[in-house]
Amino acid sequence: MKLDFTYYNPTTIHFGKESLSNLKGELEQYGETVLLVYGKTAIKKNGIYDNVIATLNEAGKKVVELSGVMPNPTYSKMLEGCELVRKNDVSLILAVGGGSVIDCAKGISVSAYCDDDPFTKYWLQFQPVDNKTVPVASILTMVGTGSEMNGGSVITNEETKIKAGRVFPADIYPKFSILNPEYTYTVSRYQMVSGVFDTMSHLMEQYFTGDDCNTTDYLIEALLRSSIDNARAALKDPEDYEARSNIMWNATLALNTMTGLSKAQDWQVHMIEHQLGAYTDCAHGMGLAAVSLPYYRHIYPHGVDKFARFATEVWGIAAKGKSKEAIAKEGIDALEAFCKECGIVTSLKALGATEEMLPKIAESTFILEGGYKKLTTEEILKILKECF
Amino acid sequence: MKLDFTYYNPTTIHFGKESLSNLKGELEQYGETVLLVYGKTAIKKNGIYDNVIATLNEAGKKVVELSGVMPNPTYSKMLEGCELVRKNDVSLILAVGGGSVIDCAKGISVSAYCDDDPFTKYWLQFQPVDNKTVPVASILTMVGTGSEMNGGSVITNEETKIKAGRVFPADIYPKFSILNPEYTYTVSRYQMVSGVFDTMSHLMEQYFTGDDCNTTDYLIEALLRSSIDNARAALKDPEDYEARSNIMWNATLALNTMTGLSKAQDWQVHMIEHQLGAYTDCAHGMGLAAVSLPYYRHIYPHGVDKFARFATEVWGIAAKGKSKEAIAKEGIDALEAFCKECGIVTSLKALGATEEMLPKIAESTFILEGGYKKLTTEEILKILKECF
Repeated sequence: MKLDFTYYNPTTIHFGKESLSNLKGELEQYGETVLLVYGKTAIKKNGIYDNVIATLNEAGKKVVELSGVMPNPTYSKMLEGCELVRKNDVSLILAVGGGSVIDCAKGISVSAYCDDDPFTKYWLQFQPVDNKTVPVASILTMVGTGSEMNGGSVITNEETKIKAGRVFPADIYPKFSILNPEYTYTVSRYQMVSGVFDTMSHLMEQYFTGDDCNTTDYLIEALLRSSIDNARAALKDPEDYEARSNIMWNATLALNTMTGLSKAQDWQVHMIEHQLGAYTDCAHGMGLAAVSLPYYRHIYPHGVDKFARFATEVWGIAAKGKSKEAIAKEGIDALEAFCKECGIVTSLKALGATEEMLPKIAESTFILEGGYKKLTTEEILKILKECF
Repeated sequence: MKLDFTYYNPTTIHFGKESLSNLKGELEQYGETVLLVYGKTAIKKNGIYDNVIATLNEAGKKVVELSGVMPNPTYSKMLEGCELVRKNDVSLILAVGGGSVIDCAKGISVSAYCDDDPFTKYWLQFQPVDNKTVPVASILTMVGTGSEMNGGSVITNEETKIKAGRVFPADIYPKFSILNPEYTYTVSRYQMVSGVFDTMSHLMEQYFTGDDCNTTDYLIEALLRSSIDNARAALKDPEDYEARSNIMWNATLALNTMTGLSKAQDWQVHMIEHQLGAYTDCAHGMGLAAVSLPYYRHIYPHGVDKFARFATEVWGIAAKGKSKEAIAKEGIDALEAFCKECGIVTSLKALGATEEMLPKIAESTFILEGGYKKLTTEEILKILKECF
């Protein structure tokens, strides 16, 4: 663990079939008015909405609702929530849904009482949060982003076409998150595998950096193996509780900051996908998969030892008598084969992109330095064309 | 993750070569008087004591000292600390040392303002803590117990010869812990490998339970692999920072509750070793190693699938053409070979036990049910004789 770090994660996780039974006790610690934030109609169809409302009523809470939060939540939707918080003096923002809904809730938390333009101040200028904030909690119904146990909030400004991510400090993390794997049964196969790749991408973005292999790398390899094994089991039987519960917990651990400790971290794939998302609104995990394959084939010669280790430790590739380059290539091939096996879409065209979008996506992508090779805009365009 | 769980760990970890620089800022959050708890002379020889005192003075703290905390900290030493806390109205207990010192600090925290006999109330009757407590923090100088990021406190009552462990809730966890791997350079080779086995034992006690293999098991396998690889590197070069830092972080993660989530957990080896420790005062990790080998050989037929997985995933044993029993045996043999390789003592006689002690140790051992086989006192005696 070469690089010094501070680790602090105060989110309480209630996990399992009976985890919702902890909601009432948690609610007692907060004031009268709760802002319930959710997406479209899913949680009404599967009954989660009714169960949550029943507990909120039992706890004697006044409930205000912000519904219709979309994948890649927009700045304008977030501002709607800020308005509701101010008007109703909300004391807890309860997000019920996936990462988009929780990201939106965190955005509302820091922005409701911000006097400047919050998007500029917090998502573009990364200024410290110096205004009053509102506690956030979550009930997770879709797996992948890890937003239930971190400070991440990705908001899309639909006017400027900027999808910007910000990691807020621990006092913005959800105070508690309720994770019931059964809530994910109704998620479509498409969304499930998209979530699995999202988890794997978070792990790989943290793994493919540095010349060492520290304990964090060993943990990442374990979570990748668990993600692969359990995705296969869940595809056989979507109601395999053991598999769905492992997939859910993998996603949380993949981005609760523990799997990034003492790692420089890359995140270039996410930077490219964020702009892809701003233009196409595609499923986040699918966009990540499409970009990852050509990206890793482009950079692996600059980190061949780590890519070779990825092949042997994560995919069980036999190393005997092969060059490191050959082993590394086999690892990326195994990743691609796994995407095909799971029905993960890896073509930008199939994800709704047009050829005209590619230069705009490339030009608007943030370029980072943490990975094995710093890209140029031309290289990003080349990578986008390779997965078009 | 079949079994429901709640996970909450609010300890702040400052890790690395410069981690002590965070002490002053942390101290600002507490009152005037600090009780400094430490062991014998080690921290004065290696300069840590002087650096900590300098920072305490800079922060304008009044310092009270409890020194001479021994391995297997005694109840009477703990009560000395309670006296100091009450007399000086201490607002922070700062433990500088290894697990024994931190365990003692937690004991002082819950006991100083307890009106009944604390050992009976908290360590024997496991009653909830209902009296005023004092915040605990730690600066770790010896690796193994994980006490720096959990609620564990093992205290030895020297009169009744009972070494009893208690896991206190999260508000008793250290508020912050400072982990500088360089502080462990001066630890003897004997203590270092003892600490490594302590870490591995914590992982195995959590691993060898249940009929499933969930994400927690994958993480445990990763931490065992990292412990093995880095112990070998540190034995070659005790000042290999990368190795010592991984060993240190492995120990923390091995017992910060994350590696026990959704696991029934065993802990029978620790129950036997605690009584061994009460009679012999041997190095905890060495005692665990001695007991583990005959214990696992005794129980593996009752959990052969998991022991076979342990062999292939942790030790890289080739499975092809072998029975599960044969593979499982090879895994335990590999564990024994590793102990020999590291110079871990696995004979009770060499650890200071006498033949007369064995029945007393067996009879006074708590028998648990979490593992693959519930032992009888006769079986415990048999196991003790096998490692005598």
